Amino acid sequence: MQRIAVDMDGVLADVFAQYLDWDERDTGIRKEREALLGKPELEAFAGIPQYLYTSGFFRSIPVVKDSQKILLELTKKYEVFVVSAAMEFPQSLPEKLEWLLEHFSFIDWQHVVFCGSKQIIKADIMIDDHLKNLNYFEGRTILFSQPHNHFVQHDKHTRVSSWQEIARLLL
Amino acid sequence: MQRIAVDMDGVLADVFAQYLDWDERDTGIRKEREALLGKPELEAFAGIPQYLYTSGFFRSIPVVKDSQKILLELTKKYEVFVVSAAMEFPQSLPEKLEWLLEHFSFIDWQHVVFCGSKQIIKADIMIDDHLKNLNYFEGRTILFSQPHNHFVQHDKHTRVSSWQEIARLLL
Repeated sequence: MQRIAVDMDGVLADVFAQYLDWDERDTGIRKEREALLGKPELEAFAGIPQYLYTSGFFRSIPVVKDSQKILLELTKKYEVFVVSAAMEFPQSLPEKLEWLLEHFSFIDWQHVVFCGSKQIIKADIMIDDHLKNLNYFEGRTILFSQPHNHFVQHDKHTRVSSWQEIARLLL
Repeated sequence: MQRIAVDMDGVLADVFAQYLDWDERDTGIRKEREALLGKPELEAFAGIPQYLYTSGFFRSIPVVKDSQKILLELTKKYEVFVVSAAMEFPQSLPEKLEWLLEHFSFIDWQHVVFCGSKQIIKADIMIDDHLKNLNYFEGRTILFSQPHNHFVQHDKHTRVSSWQEIARLLL
């Protein structure tokens, strides 16, 4: 059975939607997604350094569309691990775990990994929205589209824009 | 550069000493190490299920003798990751990370992994006190002696009883 390492933020957790909401709450202005294409997240939302350390931020992120249904299907055909580079923000760890066990209750704790560098991850397929994770991975790589990676050029990764596309690729 | 995955509890964190202390605090009796050889930890200390969920338990564990000095030396010759199967106890996650960054400040967050199953770990060498982690690992395996594994028979793992022995093996 092939093993898939699935990223959390930007793949299961719609952190961009959360940034948009919190930014609007703080500034009174709703930013346009199109205006943020290609911008690093930190540049797109000035509040990020503060949000990431705010209690409740990670616990209340919306779920990426279709990810629950399709990840559940994937667990029937693959060994699925959720792998999140969460170590930079210690207070996020219990929040992220609670979030995951609530929204993806079919993933047990045995199949959750919080790490710093993902270079230590052994799997056959990696789904991630950041090249820094995909570029060092030796298996099959799937780049999940997010505004910050919109203009990224790449030869070796398969880009997908939705979980429906992941289903077409892997199911 | 070879990569080492070093376990936390029972290898860097002297969880057995912590169990002894907390058990004595609760029962008024100091258990003898020799009487506990070969006993599963849960059998040796009735309070464990409660301790593991008690705030402060993981944050205050003593450091295993010589582990700081020798792990520091190892980081000069190997790529060292600290890998802990911590996911079963969500509240332990920030405590374990804080503990690690305090006592092993030369390990940055990029090289810390909290997981459930360690089957997803890609490394050359694994140091652990539990066979359930070592048995699935494809690289070189070092079993760190603890009372619970005292009588464990094994062909494929190298048993060590101290960090000085690890130094002799790997430095």
